[in-house]
Amino acid sequence: MTKGIKIATIGGGSSYTPELVEGFIKRYDEFPLSELWLVDVEEGKEKLEIVGNLAKRMIENAGLPIDVHLTLNRREALKDADFVTTQFRVGGLDARAKDERIPVEYGVLGQETNGPGGLFKGLRTIPVILGITKDMEELCPNAWLINFTNPAGMVTEAILRYSNINKVVGLCNVPIGMEMGVAKLLDVDHSRIRIDFAGLNHMVYGLDVYLDGVSVKEKVIQKLSDPENASFVKNIEGIGWEPAFIQALNALTCPYHMYYYKSKEMLDKTIESSKTEGTRAEVVQALEKDLFELYKDENLNIKPPQLEERGGAYYSDAAVRLITSIYNDKRDIQPVNTRNRGAIASIPDESAVEVSCVITKDGPVPLAVGDLPVAARGLVQQIKSFERIAAEAAVTGDYNQAVLALTINPLTPSDAIAKQIIDDMMGAHQAYLPQFFLEKVTMN
Amino acid sequence: MTKGIKIATIGGGSSYTPELVEGFIKRYDEFPLSELWLVDVEEGKEKLEIVGNLAKRMIENAGLPIDVHLTLNRREALKDADFVTTQFRVGGLDARAKDERIPVEYGVLGQETNGPGGLFKGLRTIPVILGITKDMEELCPNAWLINFTNPAGMVTEAILRYSNINKVVGLCNVPIGMEMGVAKLLDVDHSRIRIDFAGLNHMVYGLDVYLDGVSVKEKVIQKLSDPENASFVKNIEGIGWEPAFIQALNALTCPYHMYYYKSKEMLDKTIESSKTEGTRAEVVQALEKDLFELYKDENLNIKPPQLEERGGAYYSDAAVRLITSIYNDKRDIQPVNTRNRGAIASIPDESAVEVSCVITKDGPVPLAVGDLPVAARGLVQQIKSFERIAAEAAVTGDYNQAVLALTINPLTPSDAIAKQIIDDMMGAHQAYLPQFFLEKVTMN
Amino acid sequence: MTKGIKIATIGGGSSYTPELVEGFIKRYDEFPLSELWLVDVEEGKEKLEIVGNLAKRMIENAGLPIDVHLTLNRREALKDADFVTTQFRVGGLDARAKDERIPVEYGVLGQETNGPGGLFKGLRTIPVILGITKDMEELCPNAWLINFTNPAGMVTEAILRYSNINKVVGLCNVPIGMEMGVAKLLDVDHSRIRIDFAGLNHMVYGLDVYLDGVSVKEKVIQKLSDPENASFVKNIEGIGWEPAFIQALNALTCPYHMYYYKSKEMLDKTIESSKTEGTRAEVVQALEKDLFELYKDENLNIKPPQLEERGGAYYSDAAVRLITSIYNDKRDIQPVNTRNRGAIASIPDESAVEVSCVITKDGPVPLAVGDLPVAARGLVQQIKSFERIAAEAAVTGDYNQAVLALTINPLTPSDAIAKQIIDDMMGAHQAYLPQFFLEKVTMN
Amino acid sequence: MTKGIKIATIGGGSSYTPELVEGFIKRYDEFPLSELWLVDVEEGKEKLEIVGNLAKRMIENAGLPIDVHLTLNRREALKDADFVTTQFRVGGLDARAKDERIPVEYGVLGQETNGPGGLFKGLRTIPVILGITKDMEELCPNAWLINFTNPAGMVTEAILRYSNINKVVGLCNVPIGMEMGVAKLLDVDHSRIRIDFAGLNHMVYGLDVYLDGVSVKEKVIQKLSDPENASFVKNIEGIGWEPAFIQALNALTCPYHMYYYKSKEMLDKTIESSKTEGTRAEVVQALEKDLFELYKDENLNIKPPQLEERGGAYYSDAAVRLITSIYNDKRDIQPVNTRNRGAIASIPDESAVEVSCVITKDGPVPLAVGDLPVAARGLVQQIKSFERIAAEAAVTGDYNQAVLALTINPLTPSDAIAKQIIDDMMGAHQAYLPQFFLEKVTMN
Repeated sequence: MTKGIKIATIGGGSSYTPELVEGFIKRYDEFPLSELWLVDVEEGKEKLEIVGNLAKRMIENAGLPIDVHLTLNRREALKDADFVTTQFRVGGLDARAKDERIPVEYGVLGQETNGPGGLFKGLRTIPVILGITKDMEELCPNAWLINFTNPAGMVTEAILRYSNINKVVGLCNVPIGMEMGVAKLLDVDHSRIRIDFAGLNHMVYGLDVYLDGVSVKEKVIQKLSDPENASFVKNIEGIGWEPAFIQALNALTCPYHMYYYKSKEMLDKTIESSKTEGTRAEVVQALEKDLFELYKDENLNIKPPQLEERGGAYYSDAAVRLITSIYNDKRDIQPVNTRNRGAIASIPDESAVEVSCVITKDGPVPLAVGDLPVAARGLVQQIKSFERIAAEAAVTGDYNQAVLALTINPLTPSDAIAKQIIDDMMGAHQAYLPQFFLEKVTMN
Repeated sequence: MTKGIKIATIGGGSSYTPELVEGFIKRYDEFPLSELWLVDVEEGKEKLEIVGNLAKRMIENAGLPIDVHLTLNRREALKDADFVTTQFRVGGLDARAKDERIPVEYGVLGQETNGPGGLFKGLRTIPVILGITKDMEELCPNAWLINFTNPAGMVTEAILRYSNINKVVGLCNVPIGMEMGVAKLLDVDHSRIRIDFAGLNHMVYGLDVYLDGVSVKEKVIQKLSDPENASFVKNIEGIGWEPAFIQALNALTCPYHMYYYKSKEMLDKTIESSKTEGTRAEVVQALEKDLFELYKDENLNIKPPQLEERGGAYYSDAAVRLITSIYNDKRDIQPVNTRNRGAIASIPDESAVEVSCVITKDGPVPLAVGDLPVAARGLVQQIKSFERIAAEAAVTGDYNQAVLALTINPLTPSDAIAKQIIDDMMGAHQAYLPQFFLEKVTMN
Repeated sequence: MTKGIKIATIGGGSSYTPELVEGFIKRYDEFPLSELWLVDVEEGKEKLEIVGNLAKRMIENAGLPIDVHLTLNRREALKDADFVTTQFRVGGLDARAKDERIPVEYGVLGQETNGPGGLFKGLRTIPVILGITKDMEELCPNAWLINFTNPAGMVTEAILRYSNINKVVGLCNVPIGMEMGVAKLLDVDHSRIRIDFAGLNHMVYGLDVYLDGVSVKEKVIQKLSDPENASFVKNIEGIGWEPAFIQALNALTCPYHMYYYKSKEMLDKTIESSKTEGTRAEVVQALEKDLFELYKDENLNIKPPQLEERGGAYYSDAAVRLITSIYNDKRDIQPVNTRNRGAIASIPDESAVEVSCVITKDGPVPLAVGDLPVAARGLVQQIKSFERIAAEAAVTGDYNQAVLALTINPLTPSDAIAKQIIDDMMGAHQAYLPQFFLEKVTMN
Repeated sequence: MTKGIKIATIGGGSSYTPELVEGFIKRYDEFPLSELWLVDVEEGKEKLEIVGNLAKRMIENAGLPIDVHLTLNRREALKDADFVTTQFRVGGLDARAKDERIPVEYGVLGQETNGPGGLFKGLRTIPVILGITKDMEELCPNAWLINFTNPAGMVTEAILRYSNINKVVGLCNVPIGMEMGVAKLLDVDHSRIRIDFAGLNHMVYGLDVYLDGVSVKEKVIQKLSDPENASFVKNIEGIGWEPAFIQALNALTCPYHMYYYKSKEMLDKTIESSKTEGTRAEVVQALEKDLFELYKDENLNIKPPQLEERGGAYYSDAAVRLITSIYNDKRDIQPVNTRNRGAIASIPDESAVEVSCVITKDGPVPLAVGDLPVAARGLVQQIKSFERIAAEAAVTGDYNQAVLALTINPLTPSDAIAKQIIDDMMGAHQAYLPQFFLEKVTMN
């Protein structure tokens, strides 16, 4: 890296980009970035221009010697990159809206990560990400891939199993959000809280939680059964856990656990809100529109505070913190998605898990967890199987595997409904699912 | 066993007893039983008399020197027994009716083995069975306990973890029913079919199936997606699997898989039929009434064919086949519930699994399975966690554990509904759940 | 197999062949063999003629319609075979003599299976066996390979890891010899004894032993500490275990355990006897010479009793018993070398283990063992690592891996001595180790 | 810990104590120790006085408000302690001399940690350490036990399995010595080197090694095969590994690996040097005598440099670094002996391993290793089994288990020699092995 650090951000036209840029500015002292390449596709050209120009103004305002490049040429951006970050969305928010709407018509939660929505997001995304890793092998074989693209668990699983890239980390803002949430619950500064994380992306448990190094799990669990405190991130409604349940579980839940331990309530609420305010995708579409209006303002040269409402809070912190720790071989502890290596019993060594890791120059090394709590094992195993079969379907284009993946998903009430949703969504997303619509060639 | 073989059957007044007796008669040559002790409780005295007298007539008719004893004194029956079989039902069919009715009021399947109904059946049964194993330690420490009492998986788990008895086998007629079902599908004799079983009680998969030793799995799976063939035992309606699902699953399902892979259809049907013909318990109550009328007939001296409709078909065959194999150290292969010993990866060594075993004088030795199919792991893990936590709740009387067990059950849509069902059912079954209603003594 | 059963025996000119033929004759009723192809290499032509003609006379004498073919054309013999048995010896007994002599010069036991001798036997044998499996893929893809060629553990490991053949079983006469030995110790008929076997080839333990289904382990272990009873097979001297050791081990040992738990005594004795009667190979060479003289006798038409002294006793029984059980889908229990599939904890699922298995038409299914006794784990793990690295060296021709394999072998006292032995033996066996002497081609 | 930090050091009269005191002085800023209690037994009273007075002078010289207490009353010292360190030696160096001398008479290395010497050191030490943990339960239940007493692996195993103390860490200077050794080999500062450690105490491998975060394993392994560089710590002679061996092993060895991979050379050298300079214990006895003479000097008020030659170099650093990291919840990475928790595959979760850990207020959390290199598994498994059975023998006083432990030790050539050594050493150490000489009480 003698030439200065180069980062390529795939999906650079995303509304999140100003957060990322802010992160690089804040940590410039320990991470002297010289080139930031924002890449996007033809359809995203306009957004790329808007957000890219904001990025340039932010850096100019900070007085830092970082070159920002805007390009539609992914290969040019990847060439000799040191880190590649991915935050693209195949099909955009329109596709997400379908992911959320269609399943609800069958009485099933869409859930854009571990539910039917997540399945289709994965089927659209995985072939693209495997194209990127193929380019990386050729153009920047020593680069680290930091993936934020959801469903991060399924995508990381796919990269670990089906690419030749080893330097990959999946990143999510849920764990950092849980720490922030606990800090708020206890009314203390975030830096004093630490959680032992273990599980999968959007299915991660806090096995213990510490304030200044002393366990406060019991206290936090007490608070978690209070409806006022139940959830930590903005886009999930605050319904408290049953005290009996959470006390016997004796572990911290993540916001997405609501979909599994309160399926009925979440479904009712989703149906309700999709009728009133629209699906989450539709709400975000409106928010994004406003954000891009703001971004256009040539006088704006900082990250606008309105971005926080977008739902991606702490991503900046999480992503840049991870990159600087790898770069500086910091050996601090961060929760990321990485190869299990035996850390969680009963999950294959080569599968992706979300777990507290020591971050080194050679990537994350998971802290050994051993057995998960008895009550957590089934759901974790089920989502891992869902991710694996979904990833296989994404790579092979095997329709039956897609139906199987959705049938075994805990949100799906039957194989017949799984099939109907699959058929409906395959039609709706056909343009982004070429692997399922290839003419099957027969061998003679 | 020089003195002649003694068997004690707890719950001897059950309508199943004639099947058992028929089994002993048929296999007398290889299993020369001398004493059969039918034990029941005060409330079952009348039934015990009726069925016991039929048993005596059956044996007399067969011309065999087996003494049948009817008693309400369990300890007398256990004294020096060689085998103890358990087929009792705490609270009788009335309790089962509540197990099935109450959850449905909350939109949840009752499911008397792995669902809310099964949870409560377990909570009522486990303390009683642990009382029996305590008596056995004292009165017949070398006897084998053959448990048919449902939920057989949870009960076996509880005995393995919380008793001092090692010689225990849990038995179920589902696997043998699956073999019979395959035989019928293929229109061949049952003896030519063999299935490699692996999983848990009422959650067992057929990993391969053979006709005369040659795999016919592909053919059978084809047939399983035909609605006409879908189910193997009478009390589950015939709805076929989605071909895409079952072909990708690539394993034989058991009838109870309908509850998980077709939850919605099963729930609709259960609600429907509970309104028309009544719950399964209520149907069985009527059947039983008729059966006992038949049994009273002093001219009856064989097992009446109507018993087959009762739902316990093949129990006789399964139970007596198992007992004679142990007795004769036959080393044949039978599917039973036993300690895992590493046979199924990711399930604790000491937990109960339902798996093909070699039956020896020292009990069943499981055949090594290794990893379950990816798609099957989650559900199996989930039910195993449910069984373990339920068993712990049954032993400790811990209300929170009971709520946790039900919340993590795949049939339960939320922790709040779990709590409501628990509260309602705790009230309904209070008489049989003393461990949850003890005055909690505080320490000073 | 409608056309009649065809067996190809590679190394058909072996002095063991009459045992095999006797086995097929005895079991003809359940295994109606029609063609037996004895194959050998040019150097073995004379022996093949002699033993082949005896085989023909034996079959004629038995009055059975089995055609015996003698050939040097391996591919012709393999074509459409149903079973392939391998009993060849690359380099013959001369090579074995070197395997045994050279290490002793460095103060190390030769040990033709799990020691330095076994390493070199494996290095010579594995490429040949992988050539056979390649031919089988093409010429008889549905055939079973029954391997008797030592070192059977290492060879089976190599086939499981480096061939495309799944239908392979490794066979050894040690377990059956242990059962015979126990029968003799207890003065009962062999058929009444059963042992639960677990471990590796020539490193197998009896975890329990039964007489008529009742454990007699304690009694047998008592007897094992008596010098008179210590060993079960003829070619290992009778030195008893220390009572304290064997009682704390609490498992049956196999004769080869002497090399590890009595290394010093075995080494002293080997050095002594190599000076007086010669190495085992040299003793066997003399025996073989006499045997072939006997075999030449045109009046001989049965297996001569002198063959029993050769050391391969019970092979006939073990091999033909295995083949007939596969053929008839017998589902009886036999100890064989097969894929672990989770049966023994801590050994990889795909590695070869020697364990009691149910023998089905689809091959052996191991009985679940779980954890080995604590005291047995280290040695088993060490030999498994030795086998794996040796197999890798055999396939790759990597000299360093060969040195590593020998250094970690428990019989080897240092890396420096390992290297000396390797160098000396590489020279002695160069003709049979082409993979280590290829001109290394460099990439430009 | 509001009252100020209290440390109790059992075996406070050890010649190592000045290192420990120096460590506390150097790190006082981050670890404000207020009371240091040096405890010893009656026989060690004189040494305690000498070394205790030096400790007082050192602290006075540093101008720090730390109270040093000297006592023979262990319970007084333990009362309300925050950390307990153990560095005692049951039987003193005289016993060690016997541990080293007696086995050599039988042609076996004594090896004071993982060999026969270590076995007897463990048998003498474990009952004492379990007495200490029992006192701790009562007198300082929240204290951390930092054990330096060898054999640290076996002692930690015993505490984990047989005490009620969870807060225990076993510490060794070997890993830190390996890092220092690599730094010296590469001629760089120690702080720039990091090794991924995994294995057992005195049987630890470096799976990778980094200079400034970049792997330099290949380079270091090259150097390791050079005789000049072979060993890292002073008390093991420098003989280089065979290049073929170490390159195929592809992992860093620790100095104690010489005993296993160069048994013969080590034995020859030990026999030789025991004749000339005496055993290591005897050499150390002379060194100690000189050290205590130095310590008596009332003008001495720093750690004398001669202590470095004693062999315990880096202990100070390792021990105080560990304690301050726990105290400050530093979450840095240190290699220690702790509960496995799944970090190393195939070692039980509850067993002690030596592995890189994150050090938190709640103790060490191991980094996940997954599978050890194939070549390392056997030896690690063997030593773990040795440690487990030895620990069991120490607790139960079971003679047979002691013989079994020694027989399965890789340094022992036979069960008969194991028994002879055991018998000889039991006699020599009888005064310190009461558990083996209790009158066995029989039950009536």
